[in-house]
Amino acid sequence: MTGKAFQDYYPDNVAHCYGCGRLNEQGLQIKSYWDGDEAVCTFTPRPYHTAIPGYVYGGLIASLIDCHSTGTAAAAAYRAAGREMDTEPPFRFVTASLHVDYLRPTPLEGTLTVRAQVKEIKGRKIIVTAQLYDGGEICARGEVVAVQMPEHLLP
Amino acid sequence: MTGKAFQDYYPDNVAHCYGCGRLNEQGLQIKSYWDGDEAVCTFTPRPYHTAIPGYVYGGLIASLIDCHSTGTAAAAAYRAAGREMDTEPPFRFVTASLHVDYLRPTPLEGTLTVRAQVKEIKGRKIIVTAQLYDGGEICARGEVVAVQMPEHLLP
Repeated sequence: MTGKAFQDYYPDNVAHCYGCGRLNEQGLQIKSYWDGDEAVCTFTPRPYHTAIPGYVYGGLIASLIDCHSTGTAAAAAYRAAGREMDTEPPFRFVTASLHVDYLRPTPLEGTLTVRAQVKEIKGRKIIVTAQLYDGGEICARGEVVAVQMPEHLLP
Repeated sequence: MTGKAFQDYYPDNVAHCYGCGRLNEQGLQIKSYWDGDEAVCTFTPRPYHTAIPGYVYGGLIASLIDCHSTGTAAAAAYRAAGREMDTEPPFRFVTASLHVDYLRPTPLEGTLTVRAQVKEIKGRKIIVTAQLYDGGEICARGEVVAVQMPEHLLP
């Protein structure tokens, strides 16, 4: 978990995502890193990220899983191509579908960890699985189908 | 779309949800209403709710579908019981699972509409389907499995 996060390699013109853009001052600014074959991200919810009192808002959990997984897809695409993340052309992924199972209420106190694995790479589509932990306890799991962003959407 | 929103009936002690709690000042404060057999919610994203420039952040879309659907589940439970939403005991639902398919990029300008339908009521579990529109164009569709909140979690 040292060095540059996946998101810190994104070109400036795609670095404004509310979930993971380093240039979005109001956003969550999540950071993802390789940890062997898994990607890991930690996030400390703010007090207002509440669902029922004391527990984390499910939409935040969905957002963490979504952005961490699309970031993981991008990093995996570079790995699969044998390229560093600062080489051209950039790989950037968007979400085609997101599924989250909420396994137990997630406590609002403390720091959450999201771990993700690449399940399948198939052309421009990458399927990523993810789990969200509070300490050692799994609270949610998700699956994201990420697709490489069409060139005409790139700013 | 007149009268009190579903969320405005929630008791004060469960009205702090980041997505739909009327008492969460930093939150989205979404409002849902019956429109015949469907429930409808409108929301205007803020400029920082961006994914790539010009388009809405997928985590926000997931949040809108999530909260609108759990609110619809609560309202449907009252309807099924033949009760008004201000009667005791309160029905409040949490998300067991959330699925979102992103069908096309959602423009950041303007107001979004989420429509939801009750697909199935089975004991404490209610399945809700939802679609998110930009004007007349569907941009995402979702399905939420909502479960009635266990009493021990109520504050």
